[in-house]
Amino acid sequence: MSAAGERRWSEARIHRWLASRERPSLLDGSQGHDAAVLRRMQGRPVLCTDQVIEGVHAAVGTAPRLLGRKAVARTLSDLAACGASARAVLLALRLPRDWTDAAVRALIRGAWTEAERFGAELVGGDLALGVGPASAAVTALGELPGRGRPPGRDRARPGQVVLCTGPTGGSLLGRHLRIEPRLAAGRALREAGASAMIDVSDGLWLDASRLARASGVRLELSDPAIHRDAVRLARRTGRTPLAHALIDGEDHELLATLPRAAAMRVLAAGLPGARILGRVVRGEGVVVRDREGDRVPAPAQLGYLHGDC
Amino acid sequence: MSAAGERRWSEARIHRWLASRERPSLLDGSQGHDAAVLRRMQGRPVLCTDQVIEGVHAAVGTAPRLLGRKAVARTLSDLAACGASARAVLLALRLPRDWTDAAVRALIRGAWTEAERFGAELVGGDLALGVGPASAAVTALGELPGRGRPPGRDRARPGQVVLCTGPTGGSLLGRHLRIEPRLAAGRALREAGASAMIDVSDGLWLDASRLARASGVRLELSDPAIHRDAVRLARRTGRTPLAHALIDGEDHELLATLPRAAAMRVLAAGLPGARILGRVVRGEGVVVRDREGDRVPAPAQLGYLHGDC
Repeated sequence: MSAAGERRWSEARIHRWLASRERPSLLDGSQGHDAAVLRRMQGRPVLCTDQVIEGVHAAVGTAPRLLGRKAVARTLSDLAACGASARAVLLALRLPRDWTDAAVRALIRGAWTEAERFGAELVGGDLALGVGPASAAVTALGELPGRGRPPGRDRARPGQVVLCTGPTGGSLLGRHLRIEPRLAAGRALREAGASAMIDVSDGLWLDASRLARASGVRLELSDPAIHRDAVRLARRTGRTPLAHALIDGEDHELLATLPRAAAMRVLAAGLPGARILGRVVRGEGVVVRDREGDRVPAPAQLGYLHGDC
Repeated sequence: MSAAGERRWSEARIHRWLASRERPSLLDGSQGHDAAVLRRMQGRPVLCTDQVIEGVHAAVGTAPRLLGRKAVARTLSDLAACGASARAVLLALRLPRDWTDAAVRALIRGAWTEAERFGAELVGGDLALGVGPASAAVTALGELPGRGRPPGRDRARPGQVVLCTGPTGGSLLGRHLRIEPRLAAGRALREAGASAMIDVSDGLWLDASRLARASGVRLELSDPAIHRDAVRLARRTGRTPLAHALIDGEDHELLATLPRAAAMRVLAAGLPGARILGRVVRGEGVVVRDREGDRVPAPAQLGYLHGDC
């Protein structure tokens, strides 16, 4: 990130630059304080955290703006899986010494622009020096109205249908840096009566399996929608487009279970790209059938996991 | 962290272990979901984030339990500087491949034990693989009652006294891994009318300067309380104990400004270790006098800053 003539980043300079920003409207306390005191919320607080690490979630050398954008988008996607609205984000950065001020500002700007696109504000953070590739840990605060039980992974019920908000696979071709958190879809699905939801972060098959296990049910999926990037990627890898649609991570579409009539209503009201993928039945695990109705054998590894498996 | 015969960490195994924990009482949604839906809060939400990086905030090879403890304690200290109560924490871990399951569990247990010591619960997190030393980013959610303006760095007023909750210096001898977040003191000071507060994380002189600059005032400090660790450390470094008390980071005592009568009341009510260090006057910067009343020259570097200065 460092180039001749450009200054290496300094915590003091970045703080001065941040202090010149417009004051977040959600802030009830002083700007630039140790912690951000926010205005009272009507609904329930929803919290989640996610990271982007160079060399893991993005190639080393990825534009800092895209690192910031991705870190926020991944986190907001977790709020979407609760049907929550986004309110605030915090950004903890671990940065190598040789990044420039300009690169750090670009990352932060990428983060706050992405937050603002979904109605949230960057209200706090931390900057620290660390050996090795850069990383950004984002925490999001969301808000959930009402009093009913929010969607959870453990609430898929036999008789419901399984809905996915979009086609999957091949995100590695670039879409993984431009995740679209499905916040509006998540709210619409929760309001329509979705009892279980998950965001497809580690692969459709793996995340569907997590939902099935947590709920104690089986998911039967049929002819999943294949993203055109999965078709493109399959030409290079020799795998089938369907395999990419089932196993690739970082799509961040939502997988939801809800009564069939409710699913039809929410689709009729407009949820572009969404479709019913199958149904919830008694049993365990995930069964996938292709367009011809043939059962797809489960792959050795269902999706992406960190650490040893 | 890896030893012969011990298993390297896996995200799936750590998640199973976490799922076996008692359900956090603050949780209103399902456990193990993408985001944590919490019960409604009466007061205002307060958010902050802080990190512990091996090789920066703790030596590489520090016991994982102490890394987790320190990461949470640093973050809760930021809540203390608002006079808030701690409610929930989230933990984003970046871990090298060769850590063991046992080491990761020890870090997480260190974090949640520290949170529970202050009435907060670990409600969420993220585990990711990353090259280089381990790091832990913690976000804390606090709660602030009432409607008045919370303490901020920008609200020190001429005529107030400056109070510090304890002696400083020499934390490097080990206290920096066993930070005591001054949550009770922070609440007592806020209730007594402290208008400005900061936690002394990067050094008394530096953090006092931040308070002075943000408030547009001068702080006159006299004969600061010197921790016995500052005396011990001074024997090794050849600096004076006072220099260590003024410049060393990671004490995490609170520096507060409030009317003298209010400070006397809060001291009389019991705030062990706290004392009045000086006063707020018109002007700028920080002036320090030693026990003899002689002015202490400002050091070239006031305290610890990340990145180039």
